[in-house]
Amino acid sequence: MNDALPPQPAIDGATRLLGIVGDPIEQVKSPLVFNPRFKAAGKNAVLVPLHVRTEVFEPTLRGLMALGNLDGLIVTVPYKARALALVDEVLPTGRIVGAINAMRREKDGRWTGDMFDGRGLVLGLSKEGISIAARRVMLIGAGGAGSAVAVAFADAGAAALTIHDIDAAKAESLATRLGETYPACATRVGAPQAAGHDVIVNATPIGMAKGEGLPAPIGPLEAAQLVIDVIAKPEVTPLLAEARARGCRTVGGKAMLDGQVAELEKFFRIGG
Amino acid sequence: MNDALPPQPAIDGATRLLGIVGDPIEQVKSPLVFNPRFKAAGKNAVLVPLHVRTEVFEPTLRGLMALGNLDGLIVTVPYKARALALVDEVLPTGRIVGAINAMRREKDGRWTGDMFDGRGLVLGLSKEGISIAARRVMLIGAGGAGSAVAVAFADAGAAALTIHDIDAAKAESLATRLGETYPACATRVGAPQAAGHDVIVNATPIGMAKGEGLPAPIGPLEAAQLVIDVIAKPEVTPLLAEARARGCRTVGGKAMLDGQVAELEKFFRIGG
Repeated sequence: MNDALPPQPAIDGATRLLGIVGDPIEQVKSPLVFNPRFKAAGKNAVLVPLHVRTEVFEPTLRGLMALGNLDGLIVTVPYKARALALVDEVLPTGRIVGAINAMRREKDGRWTGDMFDGRGLVLGLSKEGISIAARRVMLIGAGGAGSAVAVAFADAGAAALTIHDIDAAKAESLATRLGETYPACATRVGAPQAAGHDVIVNATPIGMAKGEGLPAPIGPLEAAQLVIDVIAKPEVTPLLAEARARGCRTVGGKAMLDGQVAELEKFFRIGG
Repeated sequence: MNDALPPQPAIDGATRLLGIVGDPIEQVKSPLVFNPRFKAAGKNAVLVPLHVRTEVFEPTLRGLMALGNLDGLIVTVPYKARALALVDEVLPTGRIVGAINAMRREKDGRWTGDMFDGRGLVLGLSKEGISIAARRVMLIGAGGAGSAVAVAFADAGAAALTIHDIDAAKAESLATRLGETYPACATRVGAPQAAGHDVIVNATPIGMAKGEGLPAPIGPLEAAQLVIDVIAKPEVTPLLAEARARGCRTVGGKAMLDGQVAELEKFFRIGG
């Protein structure tokens, strides 16, 4: 508990609940971000951490979704793909990504899910004055985070997208899904090569643990290239350190998280 | 949301959860009572309202009980009897009452439940300088609240207990359970008569709704008699109004709720 935090919502019997679901859960920052915003918006609502164990994910989620005063859930690692099967409707981004990171109860009681990770990154970038439109992007990692970034970048007008994953089938599947929805973005599966790209994105967890190096042998970086890592901790991953040494502009995972706040507030209809 | 409230706990990813389960839930006061106490005790914990619908009570509760960071639940109307079947162990008071109003997860993962309503009333009375020891009590209502009051009063040394319920079998069952555990308390089923008793307790919901009268035809009250109503709202029920008119000392349902706070804090191991 941090006493220096902004005022927190006072919880009474009529308080509406939102939760963030993950395993582990101790590290999540969303309650600290959202609760002072609820308070500031005059909303009687609170976001609480919900530690859900993998072996009981589905029944526990169904129990939570049955609560009459729970209006929505943020879904974090490792449940973004599993959560998709629990909602009644998956919005387009979530459908293409194949995973969701937020779900809400509609007025008729049905649940809707969507994925905001990628859109969060695009918004985070735009806050730093960076546009993805017309850029050629090298994406490393076609898992949940990678898929979310790919969809959001294609949606934001990226000119080309090269996708690499050590699991080639995963990269192929993502490229196929993207190609159907975003034909204007030249999407292909390719080797992890910085050369020929304006933006290089790491969407793998490589670089999170101590002693890990680059996520892939991407060759030499050039100072004009933008290098992004979706990893939020450490703030400077081996990839970002290498990029900085080469004079590249870098953006870390915090931008993705920060960028999502406004999007999630809209999705959860907060402040309205 | 009430801005004049004491400071509320700041919720982060490591915050432990307690919940209060009921239907409806908007009216519950426990979060307003407990959360400032968590904050004052330096505990990273928060009590939230959980609206559980009757048709999905068991699966929803099992989902909540599976949460890794939920340490306990307060159980309120209409679930005190149903909750008993969900815990691994029912402590003695809960067992005799046949209902629980609090459950907690033990270190080994098992769940323990107990009933604090009656003990709360005894504690609330003692705070007003009233002892139940050696008193002859007329109890109207042998349901959840009545059973809890009966056990707590017998445990507190009541000399005699006359139990009335419009459902005679209910009164008989309670008298039998009490007789086995508290042979020193002269327990019997009888007509709802104030005469011959030192304390008259209403443990039925009659007097809660507008236009309702006395819970039973108890005959004339005498000024020396203590009259208790477990109903918290309205503060002055028809029974209490009648008792005051006769010069009796009266105690309302708020005493029962207030008296439970310390007991529940101990049960949930708060502040320790």
